[in-house]
Amino acid sequence: MAEPKISSIDGKLAEEFAVPSHVEEVKEKMATFATHHAQAGRRVVLITSGGTKVPLESRTVRFLDNFSSGRRGASSAEYFLDSGYAVIFLHRHRSLYPYTRMFLTINMLDALQFRGGEGGGEVVVDQQVLPDIGRVLKRYNEVKDGGLLLPIEFNTLSEYLHLLKAAAQALSTIGSKAMFYLAAAVSDFYIPASEMPEHKIQSSNGPLQLSMKMVPKILSPLVKDWAPQAFVTSFKLETDPSILLDRARRALDTYRHQAVVANVLDSRRGYVVVVTPETQAELVLTEEEVKKDVEIEERIVSNLTSAHSSFITGSQK
Amino acid sequence: MAEPKISSIDGKLAEEFAVPSHVEEVKEKMATFATHHAQAGRRVVLITSGGTKVPLESRTVRFLDNFSSGRRGASSAEYFLDSGYAVIFLHRHRSLYPYTRMFLTINMLDALQFRGGEGGGEVVVDQQVLPDIGRVLKRYNEVKDGGLLLPIEFNTLSEYLHLLKAAAQALSTIGSKAMFYLAAAVSDFYIPASEMPEHKIQSSNGPLQLSMKMVPKILSPLVKDWAPQAFVTSFKLETDPSILLDRARRALDTYRHQAVVANVLDSRRGYVVVVTPETQAELVLTEEEVKKDVEIEERIVSNLTSAHSSFITGSQK
Repeated sequence: MAEPKISSIDGKLAEEFAVPSHVEEVKEKMATFATHHAQAGRRVVLITSGGTKVPLESRTVRFLDNFSSGRRGASSAEYFLDSGYAVIFLHRHRSLYPYTRMFLTINMLDALQFRGGEGGGEVVVDQQVLPDIGRVLKRYNEVKDGGLLLPIEFNTLSEYLHLLKAAAQALSTIGSKAMFYLAAAVSDFYIPASEMPEHKIQSSNGPLQLSMKMVPKILSPLVKDWAPQAFVTSFKLETDPSILLDRARRALDTYRHQAVVANVLDSRRGYVVVVTPETQAELVLTEEEVKKDVEIEERIVSNLTSAHSSFITGSQK
Repeated sequence: MAEPKISSIDGKLAEEFAVPSHVEEVKEKMATFATHHAQAGRRVVLITSGGTKVPLESRTVRFLDNFSSGRRGASSAEYFLDSGYAVIFLHRHRSLYPYTRMFLTINMLDALQFRGGEGGGEVVVDQQVLPDIGRVLKRYNEVKDGGLLLPIEFNTLSEYLHLLKAAAQALSTIGSKAMFYLAAAVSDFYIPASEMPEHKIQSSNGPLQLSMKMVPKILSPLVKDWAPQAFVTSFKLETDPSILLDRARRALDTYRHQAVVANVLDSRRGYVVVVTPETQAELVLTEEEVKKDVEIEERIVSNLTSAHSSFITGSQK
């Protein structure tokens, strides 16, 4: 059998980013998950969430990271599940997780109390501290029993890149029924394994000069080679609003995928623009809605799921 | 009143590291906490825990971080509390926390179940998933009711440095009854606010060249000026065992404090060396003990609390 021709990015991936040992096993799992749900008539979305770790030392003490709690990915996962999607949740280890994200702002032990006195007594949730716990637990169990959520963890940029490639190949089997929702905050820069010091950088050696290479734009092989029939949404986060839409359009022109969700760091929870080749939809939460804890992810997901519907219809013509 | 002469490090702190707005308020709180417990005959330990964030942009999307879950600081806090200390826990936001650290490895929703059926039913903890919950909750409530634990959070290196200085000054009032247990993983490098770009660094500008300055060694003014009578323990983490003890001794010679806990990244949970000017104690866990979930922090804390006792007696002569 002839050696398949590998693109330059595939080559870089193999050479400069350590392959996680479990990647084939995970790929298998994702493929089985996708086929199973596609056969059951469900669409499948792969959500990436959280920031990537870029080690500065091979025995890592220090690393570069990207600001991201994983909030957007975790809440979006819940809305995709509510819309009938099966979800592969490729997320940074210990970033926010669907449903459990509700515990983020409290200390769990402050929400528990003894019933029938200490000692042998039972430990119950104080529903004045967690008024939502019943609803959330019920929904969490439904999703679990339905096998609708497949969580996959990454820590480093290398793990993220290889697992995303594996996911794309695993989902290619279900064609246009697959959506990619690339909400993770992925580093643009890295230090190749070959140029990395083994041991902790000694501060006694004086100031630190770091020279980091640019991370290959994985979106390009993902759209062209790995999952060419899928509906792909990328995210664009900027701190400077004046360049945001230009960056978003430029990304669509470059990678030829279906949608970019553009947002500005300071306003990202109340305002985004969903940009497609033909359209540009501003999604805004009113102060009233913010007070009522409406989440903008609900709007983003409903906008994209209907775009995905037309995409599927179109691709069947 | 004459302006107090400020050391070069104090000057650097004020100029190059943004002062958190709440530092004076926190200092007040820590001083009150320390005096109250000292009067009640308790010793007070300040534990620093977790890694520090070093922003690369002033509207931060990217940052440099140090590997640390906060495990050592959080478990040590529990053993100090068991030894009768009052604890100020200066920790990285969302790093491991005393007692709640038990939830780290599980998804809380997997440990909860409905009692009396879904709907209006109660939500209880499944004690097969969390067999320890009763003991931990009881102890957590005792500590809370006793007001024995004062948590203070930091995110960035700047916050850490200013809050540690405030803590040192707040604790100086109780003299040798104060211990510093500096377990946080503090960055050795930073980018001065003046040299930081405001907006997200654009990857389109090509590879990233970072030039980082060395963080002032805060241990020096802490020992000499801010809390000269306190018992100070610093930590030394290396990945290369061959240089570890030399680094530890060198730190003691340079800063003239009381103890260094030296450990190697790969073996840090089962082996440390407590180095003092006169002594060198190896603390090791046997495989048997590891199996029984004995924690090395228990040994470290018992070693240091007795050293602290002799230190107090000595300083009273």
